[in-house]
Amino acid sequence: MFVPRKILEERLLQMLSEDLGQGDITTAATVPEEQIVEAVMVAKASGVIAGIEEISILAEALGLEGEAYISDGAKVKKGETFLKLCGDARTILAAERTLLNLLSRMSGIATKTRRMVEMLEKAKMPARVAATRKSAPGLLYFDKKAVLVGGGDPHRLHLDDMVLIKDNHIFLAGDVAKAMEKVKDAVSFTKKVEVEVTKPSDAVVAARAGADIVMLDNFTPKQAKQAVEALRMAELREKVILEVSGGLTEDNLLNYASAGIDVLSLGELTHSVKALNVSLEITRVL
Amino acid sequence: MFVPRKILEERLLQMLSEDLGQGDITTAATVPEEQIVEAVMVAKASGVIAGIEEISILAEALGLEGEAYISDGAKVKKGETFLKLCGDARTILAAERTLLNLLSRMSGIATKTRRMVEMLEKAKMPARVAATRKSAPGLLYFDKKAVLVGGGDPHRLHLDDMVLIKDNHIFLAGDVAKAMEKVKDAVSFTKKVEVEVTKPSDAVVAARAGADIVMLDNFTPKQAKQAVEALRMAELREKVILEVSGGLTEDNLLNYASAGIDVLSLGELTHSVKALNVSLEITRVL
Amino acid sequence: MFVPRKILEERLLQMLSEDLGQGDITTAATVPEEQIVEAVMVAKASGVIAGIEEISILAEALGLEGEAYISDGAKVKKGETFLKLCGDARTILAAERTLLNLLSRMSGIATKTRRMVEMLEKAKMPARVAATRKSAPGLLYFDKKAVLVGGGDPHRLHLDDMVLIKDNHIFLAGDVAKAMEKVKDAVSFTKKVEVEVTKPSDAVVAARAGADIVMLDNFTPKQAKQAVEALRMAELREKVILEVSGGLTEDNLLNYASAGIDVLSLGELTHSVKALNVSLEITRVL
Amino acid sequence: MFVPRKILEERLLQMLSEDLGQGDITTAATVPEEQIVEAVMVAKASGVIAGIEEISILAEALGLEGEAYISDGAKVKKGETFLKLCGDARTILAAERTLLNLLSRMSGIATKTRRMVEMLEKAKMPARVAATRKSAPGLLYFDKKAVLVGGGDPHRLHLDDMVLIKDNHIFLAGDVAKAMEKVKDAVSFTKKVEVEVTKPSDAVVAARAGADIVMLDNFTPKQAKQAVEALRMAELREKVILEVSGGLTEDNLLNYASAGIDVLSLGELTHSVKALNVSLEITRVL
Amino acid sequence: MFVPRKILEERLLQMLSEDLGQGDITTAATVPEEQIVEAVMVAKASGVIAGIEEISILAEALGLEGEAYISDGAKVKKGETFLKLCGDARTILAAERTLLNLLSRMSGIATKTRRMVEMLEKAKMPARVAATRKSAPGLLYFDKKAVLVGGGDPHRLHLDDMVLIKDNHIFLAGDVAKAMEKVKDAVSFTKKVEVEVTKPSDAVVAARAGADIVMLDNFTPKQAKQAVEALRMAELREKVILEVSGGLTEDNLLNYASAGIDVLSLGELTHSVKALNVSLEITRVL
Amino acid sequence: MFVPRKILEERLLQMLSEDLGQGDITTAATVPEEQIVEAVMVAKASGVIAGIEEISILAEALGLEGEAYISDGAKVKKGETFLKLCGDARTILAAERTLLNLLSRMSGIATKTRRMVEMLEKAKMPARVAATRKSAPGLLYFDKKAVLVGGGDPHRLHLDDMVLIKDNHIFLAGDVAKAMEKVKDAVSFTKKVEVEVTKPSDAVVAARAGADIVMLDNFTPKQAKQAVEALRMAELREKVILEVSGGLTEDNLLNYASAGIDVLSLGELTHSVKALNVSLEITRVL
Repeated sequence: MFVPRKILEERLLQMLSEDLGQGDITTAATVPEEQIVEAVMVAKASGVIAGIEEISILAEALGLEGEAYISDGAKVKKGETFLKLCGDARTILAAERTLLNLLSRMSGIATKTRRMVEMLEKAKMPARVAATRKSAPGLLYFDKKAVLVGGGDPHRLHLDDMVLIKDNHIFLAGDVAKAMEKVKDAVSFTKKVEVEVTKPSDAVVAARAGADIVMLDNFTPKQAKQAVEALRMAELREKVILEVSGGLTEDNLLNYASAGIDVLSLGELTHSVKALNVSLEITRVL
Repeated sequence: MFVPRKILEERLLQMLSEDLGQGDITTAATVPEEQIVEAVMVAKASGVIAGIEEISILAEALGLEGEAYISDGAKVKKGETFLKLCGDARTILAAERTLLNLLSRMSGIATKTRRMVEMLEKAKMPARVAATRKSAPGLLYFDKKAVLVGGGDPHRLHLDDMVLIKDNHIFLAGDVAKAMEKVKDAVSFTKKVEVEVTKPSDAVVAARAGADIVMLDNFTPKQAKQAVEALRMAELREKVILEVSGGLTEDNLLNYASAGIDVLSLGELTHSVKALNVSLEITRVL
Repeated sequence: MFVPRKILEERLLQMLSEDLGQGDITTAATVPEEQIVEAVMVAKASGVIAGIEEISILAEALGLEGEAYISDGAKVKKGETFLKLCGDARTILAAERTLLNLLSRMSGIATKTRRMVEMLEKAKMPARVAATRKSAPGLLYFDKKAVLVGGGDPHRLHLDDMVLIKDNHIFLAGDVAKAMEKVKDAVSFTKKVEVEVTKPSDAVVAARAGADIVMLDNFTPKQAKQAVEALRMAELREKVILEVSGGLTEDNLLNYASAGIDVLSLGELTHSVKALNVSLEITRVL
Repeated sequence: MFVPRKILEERLLQMLSEDLGQGDITTAATVPEEQIVEAVMVAKASGVIAGIEEISILAEALGLEGEAYISDGAKVKKGETFLKLCGDARTILAAERTLLNLLSRMSGIATKTRRMVEMLEKAKMPARVAATRKSAPGLLYFDKKAVLVGGGDPHRLHLDDMVLIKDNHIFLAGDVAKAMEKVKDAVSFTKKVEVEVTKPSDAVVAARAGADIVMLDNFTPKQAKQAVEALRMAELREKVILEVSGGLTEDNLLNYASAGIDVLSLGELTHSVKALNVSLEITRVL
Repeated sequence: MFVPRKILEERLLQMLSEDLGQGDITTAATVPEEQIVEAVMVAKASGVIAGIEEISILAEALGLEGEAYISDGAKVKKGETFLKLCGDARTILAAERTLLNLLSRMSGIATKTRRMVEMLEKAKMPARVAATRKSAPGLLYFDKKAVLVGGGDPHRLHLDDMVLIKDNHIFLAGDVAKAMEKVKDAVSFTKKVEVEVTKPSDAVVAARAGADIVMLDNFTPKQAKQAVEALRMAELREKVILEVSGGLTEDNLLNYASAGIDVLSLGELTHSVKALNVSLEITRVL
Repeated sequence: MFVPRKILEERLLQMLSEDLGQGDITTAATVPEEQIVEAVMVAKASGVIAGIEEISILAEALGLEGEAYISDGAKVKKGETFLKLCGDARTILAAERTLLNLLSRMSGIATKTRRMVEMLEKAKMPARVAATRKSAPGLLYFDKKAVLVGGGDPHRLHLDDMVLIKDNHIFLAGDVAKAMEKVKDAVSFTKKVEVEVTKPSDAVVAARAGADIVMLDNFTPKQAKQAVEALRMAELREKVILEVSGGLTEDNLLNYASAGIDVLSLGELTHSVKALNVSLEITRVL
């Protein structure tokens, strides 16, 4: 998911632009023109930082110099200063909230993702944590990037990069087998095909029909285990990647992983974010 | 915050556009052209719905017919069907996630806001619940609108609609009094002036200097009460609106309200949203 | 109204882009590539210069070096050279008209505003000169900025930063009192409320109902005086800011000011601009 | 200059969007949702109306029904109602200022243009009145369209539609003859070539070198006459269109025309507009 | 690759907008306002039509009614009328060239693609014809869509939908094996991995390392056959999809197909298009 | 057709943006951050290079350093290295295809144009080769620029820069004479007027009516000669520029030129481009 910096610049400037309206009237009134200051960003809670790259692009586009003491993906402790900004005081103050909003959301996502990834690592389970497309509207790129920084798998980047046959598609196609048949000829050889199933027997149907990935939708850990068994019996377990989605939380994550699932995907990684508390403080006038 | 529907259309289409990439390949493969279906949105959890207006605009722009059974601000129960969509099946499926992402975020914000507003109402306290500018980046409009739908006060809509002198401005200006002096002549008569203070005595300074609103930043309920007292002693309490911000949660909200504060503002209303679980189901082919 | 330079850049480039069409064919034909020249801007009439900041942003975005001999708000005399540009000759010529159009409009606005502000200063009257939203379509930011540079008050920056109840709102609400009632609960504590009235008695009604600002619409100076009196009698004069709008010109400005009005707002500051005559001359090839 | 309606829509919506900011808070507070009203536009001064087409496009894009009683180019008298709008009251009020700003500027331009055109017609002089590129920044299309509606010639639509060799080009090329030489081979056969000259003898040089149009820059009427003579002597008068620009006003227009000039171009048609006073009144609730 | 119509509308309007400049001056001068006409599109050469959907979207956005006599993918004969448009004459004429340019390019791509697909079908060879990312700049969507309509495989839709390790990646990574190793953990489970190789032995290395697809770059048919053999020997042929790219033409296509290759990809499908000749004729005034 | 670099930047970035989607996942996986490399562009076929300026603007916007060994319009031989790029390896790889797509299309256009221009030069015929508006949709600027680089005439840049009365306009106006009459008063003096005719007698009608240019539409060389004769007989040949369009190819070009035609315009210059084969190779790590 590499994007040249310049390509992100415009979107970041648009975010700032919405917040500015016709301009920052407080800063215009209280801060003189061309005052150069130094400011720092401080973590008000511990977590994994994500968004350093993005806020640096915005800061530089605005003519500010940024120096990060850590890289995306590093852990910060409460109270830790992790980035310094130098430049025009008015510009820093006008952009402060936009910079913080982006960084605190992305860091919140990365922090939660990392926590789950580490739970699995500690339990020595090979399952991956993955995101869904349940992002904040319009923030798909930034939310997925934060999941990656946290160590998770971004899953589909949008609707064109993998076939994922879901309940509504199956309803319209008739059943899993018919849906798979339709897909086979119609889809480019460059795409994987995933099928969402609601019962273990359909997992077998999907795998037999050539699905690359089978998603167990809203299965309990026990049902997930049954699906794994059914696939093994049919000698199809090795042919597919198994994913569960729906109802996963930090509390039951290990239960699913120990059922022999490959990928654990959670909408809440991106739709229900707890922002990491970060603040910006002007430390001195240069 | 009335915006003609057409003005929102483009932003909503951009959200969808990001999710589409070069197009929905699953739907293209599994759903025939020009199949007309009916779909419903169902609440998977109880809460306050917000975003009906916005998703209706997007649906209509896409040529779908929407019929909402409730209005923005209404409460739904788990399992309740609250909206029907009719139209081209491919279009509904391609837009499904964007519609749900917007509605579930906005409803999550409205639900939390309403809960707090009702806590205060039940306790017969006149204080208002307010948002901050700590929204998801770029979603200021939608986040503020959801707070309004939930019964809260949107606070500043961006950086141009009220003067809000914060810590960094005061640092650069010298002190609260100097900052207020700078603001007086420089700012349009059409704007209110708010000052963020960190100790009770500064609340008095700010009020005396003509602030319309004083924000107590990171005060405990006890400190907030001291500030109220100090203002009363100085016969300035009636002259200003008192706001607290920083550290407020559902648990301590009433403590602040009972300290005699007018406005309780919480960043977490918009920066740490728990999305309301909603889903879309195709119910029949027309 | 501080806006980081980069945020304005895109709008300024769009202005240039409209003028360019598919490119400057005269310059392409007559001026060699990579010829570096020096050019100056000269005032062809006396006035107050505004727009230096804006044209500098555009010039720099185009790779030109600008050096202004004066700042926004300074007065220039006819014949005075106030800015130097160095850089690619083709670029300077292609951008010449866009740069001049922006500067001459903004300077025209600032010049007229300043003339009125100085009339009031000379007469030792404390009233402010204010703009309205009657700008050239799409140029709200630049027109308001020019008023500020001229010493005037920009008034509302758009429709979201103050409540201004006008004739049509009152017509739909019933009367001034009913309109004020509707506004009270519905509007954020962060906003001022202004009411436009057409007779002195309504000024009292509005003030009593809690309006922060009362606008006397199309009052003669004499009627304005009556409104001031009525408010004094009701002991409400100190509680509101009084504005007149409609029919104000340079000729009658002092009459209104001497009636005890706080703010004198004029649509013609921005809707009927006399551009300041400025020209660009290439002075030498480097 | 025919443009399909849909193409203009987006620019018109952007104008509205700037004025809205995050929304019309007054209208949201005072006007109920889905109230349908009728409103009219009334001329507060006599003049030529331009912009009916443009505001109708915007109104329709917003879901309003417009009915114009006159067409672009018609004259209105003070007090005349010339357009009716029906539709959602909130939408009408939120768009009122944008609609009026566009119409009043365009009508102001058309009114002045028509006045001059009629002066020439009355004097039975065949000269045309033409605009320049000195428009309000970014409003080239609308300003030119208004000149057309007023009966004037729009002149160049941007920098790509005719070669116009001006003082700075001549300075860099050396002299008029050298500039013409450079242009001859470099420019497409689809373009006319105009040359700006500062003395009668250069008019002859330019015409001889093949210019289609010669512009007399800042000539007095007497000097203009000398140029006409010089061209006649050289038997070149019929080969070129003669234009004067610089210093023209309503007062001296006929002097230039009677000197035998074909085109009289005036920057002030578009850079120093006196807006036509128009207002919008809600007349009844439907 | 399903995209809701509205999403394409804006891009199509931009194409038209570039062609319009400030407007169609010929049509404005020669065609009266509000003249309603009927026009038809006629094929001036035989071929496969693509772009019906796209030009219909643009026509409808402009308020025209379109009726296509054929669907995308149908064959037309020289002289065949395949589409009727009704509506405003000025609008049809202003959009004529944009509509034809899009349709003739897309049809040219579809025609060539279909010819190759049919060659393979006739020869009873199961290989697929595929496009590359060598489209006209900015027209990736339309070029890929046309390939699909022609019966080809669109291949990657952009840089995010499949891993394709090419020469430069391998150069920087060291060799094929090292590049594959890097990719394995870094890439989402949702993506296929393709490797471009320049010798048969690397095809084996890539397949062994887990590539889903192996691309033989600039192989002769004979070398391609050797690669197939080498994979068979290593019992890896069934595990990978084999693609050749580079140097393929209509002349040698069957040679590659008969070498046992699965996918034949050709840049010239989209980078060297021969537009299908189509014209628009106004047939009557309604 | 001079356009300041910055104005093109945004369009070039949009082209890249479409190709990137959510990012280059191959490069992210295989190439380390901040690796600096040198790359070269090599011609894989002989031809005329066009697009150096455009790809340099994009490369620089992305932070890459480009050094071109040749200028736009120079000929390259197969195997020749003509440009070097230095900078971030990930950025070079992510932009590679966009850079090559633009350059190879523009060079393909320039190569064909030059070939025809040289045929005419060799035959010592003064006729010009010209393009039409039959470009790839949305690429009008780049296609016309490439024609210019190849030595051709760009013809109309869009619909606003010359009047070109075509078959459909004549159909609606009645006949050539009526169409010309309508145009005379309606069109700005700054525009040339061209008329497309389908028989020699109409060429005379058009010339007599004042057309600046007459286009012989789909004439054979013999018919073209007849039109030349008819105009000579009517003593109108010197008054108009004669253009032929429709059916011209490299094979019959000289036949038309020798018939005494001034301008030979070919749609295929831009609608049926054979891209020049160019590649990018990373040569070393710095």
